[in-house]
Amino acid sequence: MNEADFIAALRDLPLHPGARGLQDDCAVLTIGGETLVITHDMMAEGTHFRPDADMADVAWKLVASNISDLAAKGAEPVGVLLGHMLGRDDARFLVGLHEALAAFGAPLLGGDTVAAQGARSFGLTAIGRATHQPVPSRSGARPGDSIYLTGPVGRAMLGFAGDAEHLTAFNRPQPRLAEGQALAPHVSAMMDVSDGLLLDSWRMGQASGVTFALETDAIPVADPSRLADCIRWGDDYELLFTAAPAVRLPVAAYRIGTVIERADAPLTLGDEPLTDPASLGYQHG
Amino acid sequence: MNEADFIAALRDLPLHPGARGLQDDCAVLTIGGETLVITHDMMAEGTHFRPDADMADVAWKLVASNISDLAAKGAEPVGVLLGHMLGRDDARFLVGLHEALAAFGAPLLGGDTVAAQGARSFGLTAIGRATHQPVPSRSGARPGDSIYLTGPVGRAMLGFAGDAEHLTAFNRPQPRLAEGQALAPHVSAMMDVSDGLLLDSWRMGQASGVTFALETDAIPVADPSRLADCIRWGDDYELLFTAAPAVRLPVAAYRIGTVIERADAPLTLGDEPLTDPASLGYQHG
Repeated sequence: MNEADFIAALRDLPLHPGARGLQDDCAVLTIGGETLVITHDMMAEGTHFRPDADMADVAWKLVASNISDLAAKGAEPVGVLLGHMLGRDDARFLVGLHEALAAFGAPLLGGDTVAAQGARSFGLTAIGRATHQPVPSRSGARPGDSIYLTGPVGRAMLGFAGDAEHLTAFNRPQPRLAEGQALAPHVSAMMDVSDGLLLDSWRMGQASGVTFALETDAIPVADPSRLADCIRWGDDYELLFTAAPAVRLPVAAYRIGTVIERADAPLTLGDEPLTDPASLGYQHG
Repeated sequence: MNEADFIAALRDLPLHPGARGLQDDCAVLTIGGETLVITHDMMAEGTHFRPDADMADVAWKLVASNISDLAAKGAEPVGVLLGHMLGRDDARFLVGLHEALAAFGAPLLGGDTVAAQGARSFGLTAIGRATHQPVPSRSGARPGDSIYLTGPVGRAMLGFAGDAEHLTAFNRPQPRLAEGQALAPHVSAMMDVSDGLLLDSWRMGQASGVTFALETDAIPVADPSRLADCIRWGDDYELLFTAAPAVRLPVAAYRIGTVIERADAPLTLGDEPLTDPASLGYQHG
């Protein structure tokens, strides 16, 4: 069973209303008048990090990738639970974990530690508090909205390839917590582009029942000579969002296209409709 | 770094007050006047389940082991997040997951699905709502309290060995949700005995700064001829709790000993002080 089939099957299980049909990056749970935003992301050796990676970077990215999902909902971190598989360089893992928890104001709530054989995997559950309601989703983009991106994509790709200027973008990504909270009251939809700009734009168009018409020349990329790669690679943590054109944004952002009525595909790049998500990016599972 | 060292190091990280110093089985999070109880447990192939296990049983146990931690806090399930590594028999996994979510009233809130190589591991985060405050901990047992167990231990051990009568206890354990909620207002401390009666009694004595004086003959076991094994094996999900002797319990339970002032060890069995937790049970990480 592949990932898409598995997730489709999960949708037939008893779902909490706050699961948003498993269509979003986070669950939204209203408790005692407050709204919590909750996400769980895993990282597996060989799939999400190289076997020789600095485990401090792995820990940082595990936290950052989850906190980025909170950022895209305009939430402020409350705390995290760690699922840790023991192995090499656990002391380094702890260093990176400490740095990330401190940097993002996300103290440890609990978790589990296991000894196991084989490739390692880690899980993190991040819990945040919504600063604005309704909590932004993937599905709120409306025809006429402008499409924005908070910063250039492709930096993590260049860092992965060893480009010194972009190593930090790959190893120590910065979730856009402040930007997400500032933007939440103004956006019609928001998510991070951790799986690549094209794939995540496709998903947001699909979830919203519209077409995202991206303007190639308007997309900020870290290396214009590798534009096609930059907009397909993942591991960037910029925010992709939509807002009515009249909205005055509280943070700087690049306008990269327009939401239109649903056409043949949920995404067009220039004049080209992009129908097949498998060709669009970094579906690492 | 072994599990104990790793967890000790985690205690030096920024901890949420609700983490209870990472000394308990759950985090306790007060939000908007409500109190949530949150836990995250993992299961890894080779450590927690056999490579040829029915994946429906694995999914059930993954949910049950987390829900049991909620039960020990007197919490009612709100929902769960699943961290799933794709692999063989995912359709069976989904069957067991569905059955467990329905049985425990714990709908799916979200999670993550990854493709990875090697031995599989799964994580589950369970979120519950406290039905009584203060939420029972491991650390509240006081000298003079009676020590109780909700049912016999050793059933999972016999089921693991193939005993037909106890297969269900091993493959489809039943968290004591109703008992936990009924008991929460009456207990001074409570936890499940999923790591074995002796080890978990030792931990509760240690956390409470007291000695648990267990009476060997009073402990209900599934097979009296294998008493020593029954009280050391894990995977039973009975509740271990303490209460003042005058308390009239709302559910049937076995009185298995008395809490006394801290002696040489946090646990005595008959007259024997047990100082070394490594000898007591199922520390599978």
